[in-house]
Amino acid sequence: MNIQVLSLFPNMFEGVFGASILKKAQEKGAVSLAVTDIRDFSMNKHNQVDDYPYGGGAGMVLKPEPMFNAVEKLVVDGKKPRIIMMCPQGERYDQKKAEELALEEDLIFLCGHYEGYDERIREHLVTDEISIGDFVLTGGELAAMTVIDSIVRLIPGVLGQEASHVNDSFSTGLLEHPHYTRPADFRGMKVPDVLLSGNHAKIAQWRDEQTIKRTFERRPDLFEQAELTAQQQVYLNKLKRT
Amino acid sequence: MNIQVLSLFPNMFEGVFGASILKKAQEKGAVSLAVTDIRDFSMNKHNQVDDYPYGGGAGMVLKPEPMFNAVEKLVVDGKKPRIIMMCPQGERYDQKKAEELALEEDLIFLCGHYEGYDERIREHLVTDEISIGDFVLTGGELAAMTVIDSIVRLIPGVLGQEASHVNDSFSTGLLEHPHYTRPADFRGMKVPDVLLSGNHAKIAQWRDEQTIKRTFERRPDLFEQAELTAQQQVYLNKLKRT
Repeated sequence: MNIQVLSLFPNMFEGVFGASILKKAQEKGAVSLAVTDIRDFSMNKHNQVDDYPYGGGAGMVLKPEPMFNAVEKLVVDGKKPRIIMMCPQGERYDQKKAEELALEEDLIFLCGHYEGYDERIREHLVTDEISIGDFVLTGGELAAMTVIDSIVRLIPGVLGQEASHVNDSFSTGLLEHPHYTRPADFRGMKVPDVLLSGNHAKIAQWRDEQTIKRTFERRPDLFEQAELTAQQQVYLNKLKRT
Repeated sequence: MNIQVLSLFPNMFEGVFGASILKKAQEKGAVSLAVTDIRDFSMNKHNQVDDYPYGGGAGMVLKPEPMFNAVEKLVVDGKKPRIIMMCPQGERYDQKKAEELALEEDLIFLCGHYEGYDERIREHLVTDEISIGDFVLTGGELAAMTVIDSIVRLIPGVLGQEASHVNDSFSTGLLEHPHYTRPADFRGMKVPDVLLSGNHAKIAQWRDEQTIKRTFERRPDLFEQAELTAQQQVYLNKLKRT
């Protein structure tokens, strides 16, 4: 997969792109990550990429020319990459969208900063608008890194078997059961007996029930989409009655 | 404000904490940002911070001792910081939570990575569990950076007047109207006439209507919480009838 990012703050990406899974994925050749400074495509000697809004008001607006020119430079060999604008007005990002984007060959992310984008960028340049949530960030950079992290870890071969994503929260559509590790007794806080019992059937049942219980208590909305086993449904019905 | 982060990948934060608003906020003395490596609090010479899950299964689990010891080291002078666990099971983060956390003096963020947390960390150590959305990340680092960015920009004095957050999306509870800047005609794509008219009353009305229209088309759920002016309500009713 080939991921390119357009940003006014390319340095922001260094720590994240150079660590952990994103670093390993690049070393394995599963993904190439590149960040281009939008200012390289400014139209004048002051490196100007934004300007005052028509109609007045506070804040600066990202001009259309640098963004169009930059994207046109990045799109080579007649490819048709998804061009993704990070913005609060966009489609709410979720694991389903991550799985969809993980199938693509080429992605270009546009990161605004402070300012809004000139509307013509939204209307005529981008293929997707994505928001990671109902909160305001200084720019699109952290949102883009977040989306990129969630996509790259889904590319086959990127995660080792130990860190398999099959049991992740949201991959099953439900929240995960609690985890415990050593020591069995930490300052008097103890691991549930069932996990120390060696009875694998009981452990599996306990985890299944905890998954249902946690989802019921914290995110009952997730049941609308999830497919439950017969046993899970029985346990959920029991919870609903209490 | 004093923000501390516990992470297994402290280097991930360098680019983000060293750029843009977070850099400026530190220079202005509005916030101090520090990242501590959880491995510094491992209990043995192998720097081990995780272990196999009780009851079997894939993945490693973050042990309780390093996290408890690290937090106890970071909490000084009898302070009672909010201790925030980044995890997919947490409360969904939004602008209201950002505004709440921006009033705090001391915050500590716990970032898991790959593995889950030992449940005793969740039950006995943290005050808040936050999720930035229904997608799976390699670790809590990007989620923590995202939350920190959204908080710090709300601290008085951090944003200059030009980048005021008063008109941000979600601060008004609605999506923002479109923005345009020069040139008025870019490759035949034109700025709406009203914005070039100089008629401030008409411009204000157009923006107001566009705000309602965009929210209606993309995020009608936001109207449930938003307080509309009489004029906005009239326009919304008109949209609903068409």
